[in-house]
Amino acid sequence: MADIKVGLFGLGVVGEGIVKVISKARNANAEIKRICVKNSSKKRNVKVEPGILTDNRHEIFNDPEINLIVEVINDPEAAFEIVSEALKRGISVVSGSKTMIARHLPELIRLQHEHGASLLYDASSCGSIPVIRNLEEYYDNDLLTEVKGILNGSSNYILSRVFDHDEKYENALKTAIELGFAEVDPSFDIEGFDSLYKLIIITVHALGVYVEPNDIFVYGISHISDFDINYAREKRVKIKLVAQVVKISESQFTMFVMPEFVSKSRYIYSVDDEYNGVVIRGECYDRQFMFGKGAGSLPTASSILSDVVAYHHGYRYGYKKMSYIDTPSYTTDIFLKVYVRFSSTDVTKLLPFTSIQERYYSDEVNYIVGEIKLSDIISHKEVLMSPDVFIVNFPRFFEDN
Amino acid sequence: MADIKVGLFGLGVVGEGIVKVISKARNANAEIKRICVKNSSKKRNVKVEPGILTDNRHEIFNDPEINLIVEVINDPEAAFEIVSEALKRGISVVSGSKTMIARHLPELIRLQHEHGASLLYDASSCGSIPVIRNLEEYYDNDLLTEVKGILNGSSNYILSRVFDHDEKYENALKTAIELGFAEVDPSFDIEGFDSLYKLIIITVHALGVYVEPNDIFVYGISHISDFDINYAREKRVKIKLVAQVVKISESQFTMFVMPEFVSKSRYIYSVDDEYNGVVIRGECYDRQFMFGKGAGSLPTASSILSDVVAYHHGYRYGYKKMSYIDTPSYTTDIFLKVYVRFSSTDVTKLLPFTSIQERYYSDEVNYIVGEIKLSDIISHKEVLMSPDVFIVNFPRFFEDN
Repeated sequence: MADIKVGLFGLGVVGEGIVKVISKARNANAEIKRICVKNSSKKRNVKVEPGILTDNRHEIFNDPEINLIVEVINDPEAAFEIVSEALKRGISVVSGSKTMIARHLPELIRLQHEHGASLLYDASSCGSIPVIRNLEEYYDNDLLTEVKGILNGSSNYILSRVFDHDEKYENALKTAIELGFAEVDPSFDIEGFDSLYKLIIITVHALGVYVEPNDIFVYGISHISDFDINYAREKRVKIKLVAQVVKISESQFTMFVMPEFVSKSRYIYSVDDEYNGVVIRGECYDRQFMFGKGAGSLPTASSILSDVVAYHHGYRYGYKKMSYIDTPSYTTDIFLKVYVRFSSTDVTKLLPFTSIQERYYSDEVNYIVGEIKLSDIISHKEVLMSPDVFIVNFPRFFEDN
Repeated sequence: MADIKVGLFGLGVVGEGIVKVISKARNANAEIKRICVKNSSKKRNVKVEPGILTDNRHEIFNDPEINLIVEVINDPEAAFEIVSEALKRGISVVSGSKTMIARHLPELIRLQHEHGASLLYDASSCGSIPVIRNLEEYYDNDLLTEVKGILNGSSNYILSRVFDHDEKYENALKTAIELGFAEVDPSFDIEGFDSLYKLIIITVHALGVYVEPNDIFVYGISHISDFDINYAREKRVKIKLVAQVVKISESQFTMFVMPEFVSKSRYIYSVDDEYNGVVIRGECYDRQFMFGKGAGSLPTASSILSDVVAYHHGYRYGYKKMSYIDTPSYTTDIFLKVYVRFSSTDVTKLLPFTSIQERYYSDEVNYIVGEIKLSDIISHKEVLMSPDVFIVNFPRFFEDN
């Protein structure tokens, strides 16, 4: 008889992976007792024992044998209801719902404290790469200075097709959707929100600070044009969608998600296709690089399994860095050097650049390279949202990693 | 007042790093109370408080305030005496001594069980890369199938100079010694023993099995010649010193340290200079790659700091995989495809190849490419130790990672 009796919420791509992985892991001492799904008569791609499926969540909550809930459903608000209900009942949870966690983390931390139950969610950030656990336990000190990475496999797959295989952006996007690397509505991935939510969770475990999604600059890759791609190619760099949190002093840090020019000397340059890669930098250990599959059924499910076993061994996040005397504070009061391409929207007049290093004008397309405050970028975001505008960060103000 | 009062054994390169790192890590709640060194009047490169140095180990053991011993001395037998004495007294230890740990791990595990004290040693394998902790806690299930990597920075630095910078092996070795990347007696690094000891420790945490150093094939890079280097170059591969432990079936695994041809598609191809890189492969998560500084004063010290803080939070290795019902057993009964270059020593007559794919003869140098059992390589190791012979593994029998 297994020690861990799991109540599983969700039997989509990840849920099916969990069923497979748990049945493979003979020493994990876990079994799935019941699975709550929206539609219990739908055909599944995985064999589950008859009678195990239910569409009534209370059949899980009220089962006294179930001692762990695994939640991998797509709807963030329903996920929050389930997870908070479980924690309030003192049942521990393993979750892979990044949007839900990033939006509700302070509340979820409070519920864990109040009710003694534990919430683990390493699968929510970078699938099979153990980023959260390492930040929480290993880079568990003042030395950490930055975490930068490619946190979204879909957008990276698309950019990889464009830069490594000379495909057109539109074709690459189409292929990504066909192969299941991107959703049919890909905006969550390609507009940077998936990366943003992961970055918020990472920042809690990296620096002990929670920042609201609305306070962070996020900008995706959907406006990219052949002109931008050629500009990067001529400079022998790639454009990648980079999420970063960086300490800029002992007392301050900044964070954002935006396209960035990435030169060959950087570790993330070779993070291609649907892979994720995270660079962790510290004062004494320099750079550490972790690389692997960031999404997909089995990689995400294997990360869930790690959390299931960790729970069984009494592991819980300590959120120790949140109680440091001197947690750094979030600032957008920093200067970035950016490339902004535009046609009709004259960004030189609309954006408060503090200095301009390059200007290019032609009949069809223009760009400038200049310095601008991140806070000004945020307050003028609507300019950047015009379909004829695209912004890319130069990694100038931070060390080249 | 700090909660963790450290008694430090050793104030060499790593010991000095520890003094610096602990003073930087303000939230770690640790202080170094006393340092035991061989020669307490020797000049040091780091500022330590007066009176803190001693050459009498009992001043640490008998200090009731000291609740953690950090051991980073060079002599493995002296290290074992200190660590086992500490554990017997119920004092927990953080150690970076790979040779000592690899040789005495079963005894050290027994002492931890008997006396309740804990021994942490992530710094012993791959410096700042958290390999041990991740194998123990995150890849904590049946899914793991292999760990392969470049575990020694010195030999990798030398091979990197040879393959990426066209240097002669002898010059590269000289530079490595001058820059401090290799010891004045470099044989421990370049003959593969450093990698071997790390691999033994890794295997305990990867598969739950301890294998004696003498039972494992280890072969270094000191016999490499320009001919071998050109052979690899012509095939557009690099020769790297690879340590690997691989499950070959549900019930068996093999392990060895030897030079290997590494093609561009593999992650470890781009692990250059003094860096270390480890690929962890599992059934569901495919490949994970961890990369960083494997040695050096501050990177190693920052790993020690992680263990110091982990100890403070009650962390100890569970060695859970050792108690799996079905731990796999070690075998050398597998076939390898190898390249063996020789001049006077006729390896075709001396080594029991089961098949030969290529033969090359010339006045000066010969080589063959053939299949041979690992157990036969081990029993004929003296043939390979002739200075005119060099063996390189083709990664043919394992997936190309």
